[in-house]
Amino acid sequence: MYKKTHISDAVIKRLPKYYRYLCHLLQNGEHKISSKALAEALNVTASQVRQDFSNFGEFGQQGYGYDIYKLTMEISQILNLHADYNVIIVGGGNIGNALAHYTGFKKDGFNIKAIFDINPENIKTPEKCEALHVDKLESYCEQNHVDIAIIATQKDAAEGIFDRICNIGIRGVWNFVPIDLMSRDNTVVENINMSDSLFVLSYYMQNQK
Amino acid sequence: MYKKTHISDAVIKRLPKYYRYLCHLLQNGEHKISSKALAEALNVTASQVRQDFSNFGEFGQQGYGYDIYKLTMEISQILNLHADYNVIIVGGGNIGNALAHYTGFKKDGFNIKAIFDINPENIKTPEKCEALHVDKLESYCEQNHVDIAIIATQKDAAEGIFDRICNIGIRGVWNFVPIDLMSRDNTVVENINMSDSLFVLSYYMQNQK
Repeated sequence: MYKKTHISDAVIKRLPKYYRYLCHLLQNGEHKISSKALAEALNVTASQVRQDFSNFGEFGQQGYGYDIYKLTMEISQILNLHADYNVIIVGGGNIGNALAHYTGFKKDGFNIKAIFDINPENIKTPEKCEALHVDKLESYCEQNHVDIAIIATQKDAAEGIFDRICNIGIRGVWNFVPIDLMSRDNTVVENINMSDSLFVLSYYMQNQK
Repeated sequence: MYKKTHISDAVIKRLPKYYRYLCHLLQNGEHKISSKALAEALNVTASQVRQDFSNFGEFGQQGYGYDIYKLTMEISQILNLHADYNVIIVGGGNIGNALAHYTGFKKDGFNIKAIFDINPENIKTPEKCEALHVDKLESYCEQNHVDIAIIATQKDAAEGIFDRICNIGIRGVWNFVPIDLMSRDNTVVENINMSDSLFVLSYYMQNQK
């Protein structure tokens, strides 16, 4: 598969949306879709769809539309969704707790194995997930392979926890604390700021799409 | 203020990030920043920064950098962050509950006033927020001005609730149910799919930024 060296963040962020919509079409027994129909469903332009996919190679033939199954598999491979990930959560407050109980992650291969807090005894974990004291972070990760750490601590604890996670060598961080952590050499960060998307909503309430 | 007719979603999504970083600089007593320094802090290019702002008019003079205070105020105005919003949550499960207790929204003017559920008696609401039966959605909104509804119901209830919200005339919807709701004439939707950003993280774990 041919791939451009640098693909913009905006393209990468659209891939999960394509993927989910294509999975939905597959479930409904569809086989082909045109870039125009795909564009309409996702509220982008057809040329944007063609441009996005051209970053990753040839996916369709002009005038014939895309083979939905093939395209779904390709995007899944680009996003590495066939992998299984072991995930831990640091911080057992409302957000950490809600994420631990969110059932949507498991079907995509993200398995939440443990949740760390300074008061682990207060945490009601879902099945197959344990609550541990945050002091045990390093020893747990020595004994168990961990791919992704979710940071959902208090704001002033986040940087310290992030340092520890990087030292442990965990490769992915999903950060829910409202400070932007920067990716390091061996650790990639996705920062989630809940308010950002409310700000975007606020903009569109004034400037209808 | 001059403004282009169509501004891309990608630009709008970057505005909250600029805004938060500029607020942080202001708090630290900074006055000026170059597009280069701003770009480095936000992991984009300087020309991207200049292009983004050029959508909204003239914010700086070549070679002099941006006036941080002025730029912060302008972005705040573009995003309409001076407004106060009354927000309700429909669905009192883990996500709805976590959002109700998330303290970050209030300081930005998003006030969560009520949470609706089929079992409101089980919900522990924060201060100044009431738990009501979902049957009372219409009557509550008749008596109280509501700007934004957060949908955090079970998947199969989401479409029905969305119809009711649109009929009530609520202008903004923040949807946490993993189906993409489409904006309607008088109601704008921001769809949050928690897994999407995990997929993006998965991509970058294979293809380091």
